[in-house]
Amino acid sequence: MRTVDWHDCKVRMIDQKRIPWELVLVEFDNYQAVANAIFDMTVRGAPAIGAAAGFGLALAAQQSRAETLEQLLSDLEVAAKTLKDARPTAVNLAWAVDRLMAVACSGTYRHPDKLRDVLLVEAQRIADEDVEINKRMGANGADLIHDGDTVLHHCNTGALATVDYGTAIGVIRTAFEQGKKFHVLLDETRPRLQGARLSAWEMEQMGIPYDILPDTAAGYYMRRGEIKVVLLGADRIAANGDFANKIGTYQVAIMAKEHGIPFYSVAPTSTVDLSLKSGDEIPIEERDKSEVLAPFGHPITPPHFKARNPAFDVTPNKYLSGIVTENGIARPPFTESLRKLVEMSN
Amino acid sequence: MRTVDWHDCKVRMIDQKRIPWELVLVEFDNYQAVANAIFDMTVRGAPAIGAAAGFGLALAAQQSRAETLEQLLSDLEVAAKTLKDARPTAVNLAWAVDRLMAVACSGTYRHPDKLRDVLLVEAQRIADEDVEINKRMGANGADLIHDGDTVLHHCNTGALATVDYGTAIGVIRTAFEQGKKFHVLLDETRPRLQGARLSAWEMEQMGIPYDILPDTAAGYYMRRGEIKVVLLGADRIAANGDFANKIGTYQVAIMAKEHGIPFYSVAPTSTVDLSLKSGDEIPIEERDKSEVLAPFGHPITPPHFKARNPAFDVTPNKYLSGIVTENGIARPPFTESLRKLVEMSN
Repeated sequence: MRTVDWHDCKVRMIDQKRIPWELVLVEFDNYQAVANAIFDMTVRGAPAIGAAAGFGLALAAQQSRAETLEQLLSDLEVAAKTLKDARPTAVNLAWAVDRLMAVACSGTYRHPDKLRDVLLVEAQRIADEDVEINKRMGANGADLIHDGDTVLHHCNTGALATVDYGTAIGVIRTAFEQGKKFHVLLDETRPRLQGARLSAWEMEQMGIPYDILPDTAAGYYMRRGEIKVVLLGADRIAANGDFANKIGTYQVAIMAKEHGIPFYSVAPTSTVDLSLKSGDEIPIEERDKSEVLAPFGHPITPPHFKARNPAFDVTPNKYLSGIVTENGIARPPFTESLRKLVEMSN
Repeated sequence: MRTVDWHDCKVRMIDQKRIPWELVLVEFDNYQAVANAIFDMTVRGAPAIGAAAGFGLALAAQQSRAETLEQLLSDLEVAAKTLKDARPTAVNLAWAVDRLMAVACSGTYRHPDKLRDVLLVEAQRIADEDVEINKRMGANGADLIHDGDTVLHHCNTGALATVDYGTAIGVIRTAFEQGKKFHVLLDETRPRLQGARLSAWEMEQMGIPYDILPDTAAGYYMRRGEIKVVLLGADRIAANGDFANKIGTYQVAIMAKEHGIPFYSVAPTSTVDLSLKSGDEIPIEERDKSEVLAPFGHPITPPHFKARNPAFDVTPNKYLSGIVTENGIARPPFTESLRKLVEMSN
């Protein structure tokens, strides 16, 4: 089962807000609802929202009653903006939308219905490629995990964060399938608790030994010498290797450096945004304080209490041991190594 | 209103599990119930559990039907062990119990009823002294906060964590009462959320501007240059300045060092345990995983999911800018400076 898929002329996805309690599929027959599902985190994870946006734009083409190419392109422009605006930080969303818009605007397809078909094929290709790319990242990164290791992971980067298989958890999964014996510590990842809710659920599914940690406890286990490697994802990587990822990533990076623990981001080359020189240019989404004060509808304070809720942070490249991509592992200096790996995908 | 008090022949305390929802006083007429209230965190905060244990032992003396001094001392030994075992990390608990036991065993008081009276007076003295000591710490530390600063705080160290007034939040309170304008960022402090539930409630009471942060976000605000000083408490301080405090303190310490931000612990000299050379000797309590997986009865995962829950961590002295006590601020090297400040209390 895929996290995001095209089914019966609709965009179908796993409702991640209901994991780990139940596995429910939800379907959307209009792109506005897809954009909202991205905003409200029914679907989340940089590669998964890329695929969802691709299908969303293909859906917008089907929705459009345009009878001319010009009308259709105009409708698609509106839909592309709505989808891109759903979440600002992860670049995969814009990357997928831009990839479909490039096809639409290429001039190759003159008839609206033909373009509708082609866009759906391209969206499906993005989804299919994501699964294949994840497996290649898994193979490229699996050597980073050794028998007896304890791996620290932040947020969720598994099958749920992608179309299927996962990025950092894809690496963990490949190492596990290779028969390695190791233990995974999962930061629970407040405020949305993706580690406790989603990553732990995936570990349970796969039978990989794990423990959930409060986000306050990773340093404690590092100081005890228990953590051998940190693996996590990325939502946008600048040309110099600085990268945005789930809030808390930066803290884990600082701690890993302090303890001399290797720290890797695992992400497809579609996450690299060569148009940004450094991470300072990455926009950081701040979400509603209710996610902090009343997680999943359970208030921990009265609603008038004050809170901040930045959804991402930026980790400077100096903390990174490497970036695992489908084309190999980029090592410092990243400006050169990343560009090479990205060019292999072009 | 005091967090812990003696009222109508019972130990009375604010039920901190019900803050911020309601301010409820609970009363205990036997020391076993006091020990349980310490264990289940009806009362928490190193100075507050010290005072609670003092009153608990005075209560044990009242409970005892002993008619001879020998019998009473024997009953007190049992009660002292039960109270000390309630929570292992904070030394204030053992310190208060030992202070009363020293009075009991001094040989000064030969009659059981006289000793019962004297123990209650001594317990009351510990509580009264705590308030006075907190105000002195507030005065000693207030210069660490400047107009326009943003202060980061972890866990709860306010009136609720003490008999009244607070340690690190006591410093914040004194600076506020001096008319300084500043902002406080409160780590929510998973798993027990003392920052979000208790410290934010106290800020609301006092009208001090604040925001709650997920524990994942402190580094983000440090990197933006917003945080000027870190103030937090201590549960036990070794002779060399290494100190145990609420889980997550160590991480904040590492981040503060990485960003060049002054990092202070605020604690009474009763928190210093000169019998321990370093923090490696401090026992760390690990609590039930349900505190992580189902905070305050709201499950975030199914109960069979796995989790770790260390309640404290140890921060090595190299991260500390200073320790604010009632007798002044200890600065590195701490072995000398701490001993001097402790001796001033003897």
